[in-house]
Amino acid sequence: MSWNCKVYKFAMSSPDDMSQFENLLNEGEIKAEHVVCIIAKTEGNGRVNDFSRPLAHRAFRRVICDHAKKSVDEVEGSVAFVMSGGCEGIMSPHATVFVREPSDRVNNDGAKKLTFATANTRKLLPEEIGTLTQVDLVATGVKQAICDAEIESIDDVHYVQVKCPILTSERINEARSRGQEPVTVDTLRSLGYSNGASALGIAVGLREIDADIKASEICSNEKLYTDRGGASAGIELMNLQIFVMGNSKTSASHLVIGHHRLDDLIDADGVRQAIRSVGIDVEGSVKAKDQNRIINVFAKGQVPLDGLLRGRRTTLLTDSDLNTRPARAVLSSVIASIVGDPAIYVSAGWGYHQGPTGGGIAAVIAKA
Amino acid sequence: MSWNCKVYKFAMSSPDDMSQFENLLNEGEIKAEHVVCIIAKTEGNGRVNDFSRPLAHRAFRRVICDHAKKSVDEVEGSVAFVMSGGCEGIMSPHATVFVREPSDRVNNDGAKKLTFATANTRKLLPEEIGTLTQVDLVATGVKQAICDAEIESIDDVHYVQVKCPILTSERINEARSRGQEPVTVDTLRSLGYSNGASALGIAVGLREIDADIKASEICSNEKLYTDRGGASAGIELMNLQIFVMGNSKTSASHLVIGHHRLDDLIDADGVRQAIRSVGIDVEGSVKAKDQNRIINVFAKGQVPLDGLLRGRRTTLLTDSDLNTRPARAVLSSVIASIVGDPAIYVSAGWGYHQGPTGGGIAAVIAKA
Amino acid sequence: MSWNCKVYKFAMSSPDDMSQFENLLNEGEIKAEHVVCIIAKTEGNGRVNDFSRPLAHRAFRRVICDHAKKSVDEVEGSVAFVMSGGCEGIMSPHATVFVREPSDRVNNDGAKKLTFATANTRKLLPEEIGTLTQVDLVATGVKQAICDAEIESIDDVHYVQVKCPILTSERINEARSRGQEPVTVDTLRSLGYSNGASALGIAVGLREIDADIKASEICSNEKLYTDRGGASAGIELMNLQIFVMGNSKTSASHLVIGHHRLDDLIDADGVRQAIRSVGIDVEGSVKAKDQNRIINVFAKGQVPLDGLLRGRRTTLLTDSDLNTRPARAVLSSVIASIVGDPAIYVSAGWGYHQGPTGGGIAAVIAKA
Amino acid sequence: MSWNCKVYKFAMSSPDDMSQFENLLNEGEIKAEHVVCIIAKTEGNGRVNDFSRPLAHRAFRRVICDHAKKSVDEVEGSVAFVMSGGCEGIMSPHATVFVREPSDRVNNDGAKKLTFATANTRKLLPEEIGTLTQVDLVATGVKQAICDAEIESIDDVHYVQVKCPILTSERINEARSRGQEPVTVDTLRSLGYSNGASALGIAVGLREIDADIKASEICSNEKLYTDRGGASAGIELMNLQIFVMGNSKTSASHLVIGHHRLDDLIDADGVRQAIRSVGIDVEGSVKAKDQNRIINVFAKGQVPLDGLLRGRRTTLLTDSDLNTRPARAVLSSVIASIVGDPAIYVSAGWGYHQGPTGGGIAAVIAKA
Repeated sequence: MSWNCKVYKFAMSSPDDMSQFENLLNEGEIKAEHVVCIIAKTEGNGRVNDFSRPLAHRAFRRVICDHAKKSVDEVEGSVAFVMSGGCEGIMSPHATVFVREPSDRVNNDGAKKLTFATANTRKLLPEEIGTLTQVDLVATGVKQAICDAEIESIDDVHYVQVKCPILTSERINEARSRGQEPVTVDTLRSLGYSNGASALGIAVGLREIDADIKASEICSNEKLYTDRGGASAGIELMNLQIFVMGNSKTSASHLVIGHHRLDDLIDADGVRQAIRSVGIDVEGSVKAKDQNRIINVFAKGQVPLDGLLRGRRTTLLTDSDLNTRPARAVLSSVIASIVGDPAIYVSAGWGYHQGPTGGGIAAVIAKA
Repeated sequence: MSWNCKVYKFAMSSPDDMSQFENLLNEGEIKAEHVVCIIAKTEGNGRVNDFSRPLAHRAFRRVICDHAKKSVDEVEGSVAFVMSGGCEGIMSPHATVFVREPSDRVNNDGAKKLTFATANTRKLLPEEIGTLTQVDLVATGVKQAICDAEIESIDDVHYVQVKCPILTSERINEARSRGQEPVTVDTLRSLGYSNGASALGIAVGLREIDADIKASEICSNEKLYTDRGGASAGIELMNLQIFVMGNSKTSASHLVIGHHRLDDLIDADGVRQAIRSVGIDVEGSVKAKDQNRIINVFAKGQVPLDGLLRGRRTTLLTDSDLNTRPARAVLSSVIASIVGDPAIYVSAGWGYHQGPTGGGIAAVIAKA
Repeated sequence: MSWNCKVYKFAMSSPDDMSQFENLLNEGEIKAEHVVCIIAKTEGNGRVNDFSRPLAHRAFRRVICDHAKKSVDEVEGSVAFVMSGGCEGIMSPHATVFVREPSDRVNNDGAKKLTFATANTRKLLPEEIGTLTQVDLVATGVKQAICDAEIESIDDVHYVQVKCPILTSERINEARSRGQEPVTVDTLRSLGYSNGASALGIAVGLREIDADIKASEICSNEKLYTDRGGASAGIELMNLQIFVMGNSKTSASHLVIGHHRLDDLIDADGVRQAIRSVGIDVEGSVKAKDQNRIINVFAKGQVPLDGLLRGRRTTLLTDSDLNTRPARAVLSSVIASIVGDPAIYVSAGWGYHQGPTGGGIAAVIAKA
Repeated sequence: MSWNCKVYKFAMSSPDDMSQFENLLNEGEIKAEHVVCIIAKTEGNGRVNDFSRPLAHRAFRRVICDHAKKSVDEVEGSVAFVMSGGCEGIMSPHATVFVREPSDRVNNDGAKKLTFATANTRKLLPEEIGTLTQVDLVATGVKQAICDAEIESIDDVHYVQVKCPILTSERINEARSRGQEPVTVDTLRSLGYSNGASALGIAVGLREIDADIKASEICSNEKLYTDRGGASAGIELMNLQIFVMGNSKTSASHLVIGHHRLDDLIDADGVRQAIRSVGIDVEGSVKAKDQNRIINVFAKGQVPLDGLLRGRRTTLLTDSDLNTRPARAVLSSVIASIVGDPAIYVSAGWGYHQGPTGGGIAAVIAKA
C-alpha cells in the first residue's frame, strides 16, 4: 500500500465559512484524520492585528476536532494550519487542503508526482523571533519533512511554506521583564524579521546557501535567498510550522508541482515559466481548456527595498496609510490575469530572502 | 501650416516635482503656451481628501504661468489639468503633457495620426453634481472638442478624459442652505456619481447610447456605457474639463492612438488588443524592442458591483479600511506586466458607465 | 429568594483571550449558566470586515458551552453576545459580563438597584435590515425585556443595547436573487441604517417617540431619537439581540445605573452629569478614591452630520482613509480623561437616532 | 519704540484656503512683512505621504510673496512655516499666525508678556537626520532665538516648536549612493527619530538636560526630555526651523503664554494646570465667559512605548491600519473638551523626549 497526496481548493465566504470543507468531509471525499495541512488566504490586513487568521484557524481546527474526534492539542500536533492574511485587490479568499491518505494506487508511469509533509518545532521565546535560532529550527524542520515526504533529491522540492510568529507589545514587554531584548520593538516590522529568518532557514535546509550565516545578515544581505519557499508570520502561534512540497516517484498522486523564480512583482514571464514547468503551455494567458488543470498557485513576493520597479519610483514604501498591503494586490493580479482565476495564494510585503530582492517565487500545483 | 500633436511623459518624485517639466521647457523642446492638457497620476488616496491633486495642479499651473507669462486665470482657461490621485501598488507617479503646436510638417502618408482638443464647461452647483445636467454639459463639450480636434468620424475618437467635481461637507451644507439637496450626502460616494454622470456624457457625445437618459439610470443602468472614456473626480474644481483624443488625417503627429474594451479588471487579453490596435505585436508581454514605442496607456477600471470576479468573491466592496483603492493596483499591475513599464495611467474604483460593469477601457498612445 | 444582578469587567489581551473569564468561572465567582449578556469592546475596525467580533464571539461561546455543558444553539438562545468592534485611540479592549443569579440577598434599603434582561428576535432577511420591520421588532423586544427585568417605570430604564446585522455583498446578492432590494448597496453604509432602525426601535419601546414612524424618517429625521440606548451592528448575526438595563426595587444588586444625554462628542459636562446620576461627585476628573466605584461607562456617540463641532469644521466625514473611526477615539478619550480608566465601552460612528444629532448617550454602572 | 507680538488664529476650509489670511492682510490688521511664523494644523495623515503640508506651505508662502512683494527665497528666509499634518477626530484644521510689529505701545504694568522669535539652520544631509548633529543644530538655534526674543530668563520660555525633515526612499537612496547610511531605512520611523533629535536639541538649548548626550540615547533614553517643546517632522524641508515662545518684560503684547507637563495622553488635570498658568480659572471645563481669552493651545503628545495607559492595554502600537494616528484624536479631544474649542494645535505620535514617556506638553496662549 502506498500514499496518495490529494489537494482540494474551495472558496470561503468568510474566514469561518466551513461549508465547503464540511461538504468534503460529509461526502466522504476526504477524512479529517488524513488532513496534514490547510493553507488559507483570509481577508484581514495581513499584519499585526489581523484577526481573520485566528478566526479561520479556530474554525478549521474545530471542524477537524469534531470529525476526527480528537482534542485541540492532538489536532494542532498533526495538522499545519497556515492562515495567511491579506486578500487585497481581486485575490479571492479560499483554502487549500492537503490530504495524505493510504491508497492502493500505484505510481506505474514512473513519473515523479506530488508529495508533501510537515514538521513542527518547539515554541520560540519572543527574543528568538527573527534570529539565527529561528533559522536553525526551520532548516532542521525542512530536512526532516523532506525525509518524511520521501523526496529523494533536494532538486525535487518546489515549495516550502513556513508559518512563524510575530512580536506584540505583550510579547516584547514579557521578554523585557526577563531582561531580554527582541530584534525590534516595532511590532509591524517584526513580521519582516520573522519571515526573513524563516526564509533563510528554508534556503539552508535546501542547501541553496551555506549554513554559516551571521545574525547581521538576516534582513540585510540580499544575496542570500531561497527561490523555493516563503514564510507567513502571524500572531496566532509561537512555534514554527514547516510544510514541504515536492515530487517523488513513490507518490501515487494525480498531481505534480513545479516552480519558478520571479524577478520582480510584475514578472509575468516568470509566472508563465512556473506554469510551463508542470507541463502546461501558455503564451499570454492560460487557454480556457487548460485552466482547470491548475489546482492552485502559491506565490511569495517582496517589495523592492529601494522603492523602485524597473527603474520607476513606486509608493510601496512611502504610503503610510496602505503601507505594503497593495503588494499582494499587485502580484495576485498579474498571476490571476494569466491563470484566469483570482482564487490563488499570494503572500507579499516588506520582505527578504524569499526570491531575489524585490522579486519572489511562484509554485504551481496541477493535474499531471 | 498644420498642427503637430506631441505627447511627453515624465516621472515625478513628488506631486510638486516640476524638474522634468522645467527641463522640457528650458531646453526648448516644448513651449508653455502650446500645452493644452496635463494628465498626471499623483500619489494621494484618490478620494475626497487627496491633497496630492491640488498640490500638483498648483505646481504645474505656476510653471506655465511663469514660462508663458500668463495669469492664473488665463492658464486655467487654456489648459486642462487632470490630476488623478492614486498610485497604489506599483503604478509610478508621472505626468503626461499634451502639446499642440503649429508645424510645417505635413501628414503625407495619408494615415490618420493623433490629434486632441479640450473643452471646459461652466461651474456646477453642488446639487448638479451627478445629475443629467452634468451629462448634458459633458456631451456638449465632447462634441465641441471633436470638432476642434478636426476628427472627421466619431469612430476615430479613442479616449475622452473628463475631470469633474465632487461633494464636500461644505458644498453639501451650502446647497442645503439654499434648500437644495445633492444626489448623495456621502462625500466619498459622490465621486462615483460624478464620474458616472461624466461617463454617460461621453457616451452620449460619442453617440454610443441614446441621449434620452433618465436621472434614475445614472449609476444604476449597467447597460449604458462608453468604452472610449473615463472620468476622474476631484475636490479641486467645480466645472467640467473635457479632453478628447483621436486620430485624424489632418494631424501631422508622429503618434497614433487606439483602444479596447476591458471585460474585467484582469482582462489581459483586452489590454493586448488595445496594444495591437496601434500596430504593435504582442503575445504575452510586449517585447523589449517594442516597449519604447508605447508612450503611455490610459485605462479606466470599475469594481464589479456584485463583488465577484470570474465568479469568485473579492474584498473590493467589503474591505472598509482600503475600500476600492486596491482596484487601481489590480488594473495597473496587469497592464504594467504587459507593457513593461509601471508609469502608466490607471484610474479605477466604484464606478459605472465606463466600460461594461466590473470592466473598463484601455487606450494606448504609441509611435506610429 | 430574589435575583442578584452582578457585573464584571476584565481586560482582554486579544479578542480570544478568555483567561480572566475562565478565572471567574474556575474560582466559582460566577456560574456559566447565570451569564445573560457579554458586552465586549474588541479591537477590530468596527466596520464590515471586522473579524475581531466573530473571533471573540466564538471564544466566549465556547467557554460557556464547555462550562455550562450546553450546545452552541442553547447558549446562543440564552446569552446576548454584544461584540462591539473598534478600540481606536486609548480605549482598552475588555469585556463586561452580566450575571443574573438566584440569591438570598434582600433589597432592604428600599432604593432601586441594577437589574437587566435580554430579548432576542427572529432572523431578519437582508432586505429587512434598516427598515420599519426592524424598528418594530426592537420595540417589542425592549418592552418584553423591561417586563422580564421587573422594571416598574419606564423612567427607570437607563441603557438599552441592541446588536443588529449588516449587509454584505453576499447578503445583497441573495436578496436580489429573490427580486428584493435592500435599503442600500453600500455595505459600510448599511451599518448606519441598521443602527438607526434599532435606535428608533428603542425610542418607540421606551415611549420617547410615537410609534407611527415613516420609513423615510429612518436615518433622516434628526428629531427622533432615544437618549437611553445604542446599537452596534455587525456581520456575525442576522437577528436582533436586545439588552435592557435599569433600576428596580426588586433587585438585590449592589450596583446602580444612571445616564445622561451627550450634546456633542466632547460634552464632558454631559459625562459628568451621568456620573453624578449614580451618586458620585465630580468636578474635573473623578477623584482617585471614587474611581473604583465605577464599574463601567457605556456610551454611544454620533458623528455630526454637517461635519461641524461647535461651529468648527472637522474631518470626520471627509477623511476617506479613516472614515469615522476616530469618533470612537474622541468620545472614549473624553470619558477616560474624566473617569481615569481607558477600559470603557464607547461605540461611535456615522449614526442617527442615538441621542441628539452629533451627540450621544453615556450610561454609568457603579457601586451603590 | 518697542515690539508688539500679536497672534491670530483662523479656520481653513482646506489646506490651501487663504481667505481668512487674505482678509487680515487686506483689512490692514497685519502686514505680510511682519509675519514671523505660521503654525497650521492641516488635514493630511501627518506621515510620510502627507501632501496637505506642502500644499498649505506653498499657499501661505505665495500670499506672503504677493503681499510683501518678496521672492520665495526671501520669504522662506524670514518666516517659519510649521505645517503639521493630522486633524484626526475633532481637531479642526486652522492656522495660527505670529506677527511681530514695531509698536508705540509700552509694557507699563511691569508684567511679562508674550514674545517670540525664530531661528533657521542649514540643510541637513539625509544621514544627519535623527543624529547628534541635529541635536546640536537645534540647541544652538534655540539659544539664538531666546536672545532675539529678548527673553531674560530661560524659565520664561514656555514653548519651542521645531520643524524638521524626514527620510524618503529617494533621500535614503541618495545617501547610500554616497556610501552613507541613514539612522533607519523605515521612512515612517524616521519621523520619530527626527522629532526625537529635535526634542533633545530643545532640552539642551533650555538646559533641561546636559549637553553630553550619546547618539544611542536618541529615541532610547526615556529620562531625557524637554517639557517645553515639540517637533513636527515633514517631507517638505531639509533644514531645521525653530520657533521659541516665552514671556518678557520688554514685550508690549496683550498676550501671555504658560505651559504644563502632561503625564499621559488623557491627563486632563495637566491641561487644566496649563490653563491656570495663564491666569484662567478652571475646574471641569473652561467657563463660557473665559473661553475667548484663550487664543490657542499648543500640545505635543507621545504614544506610550509599552502600549499601556494607566496599566491598560491600548492598540496604539498594534493597529497596523491606523498606526499611531488616533493619538492625535485622543489628546485633542481631551483638550477640546476642556477649552470648548476644537481648533487647537495637537501633534502626537510615536515619540520620544517631548515630555515624559507616554505623556507630553501643553502650552496656552491667552489674553493677559
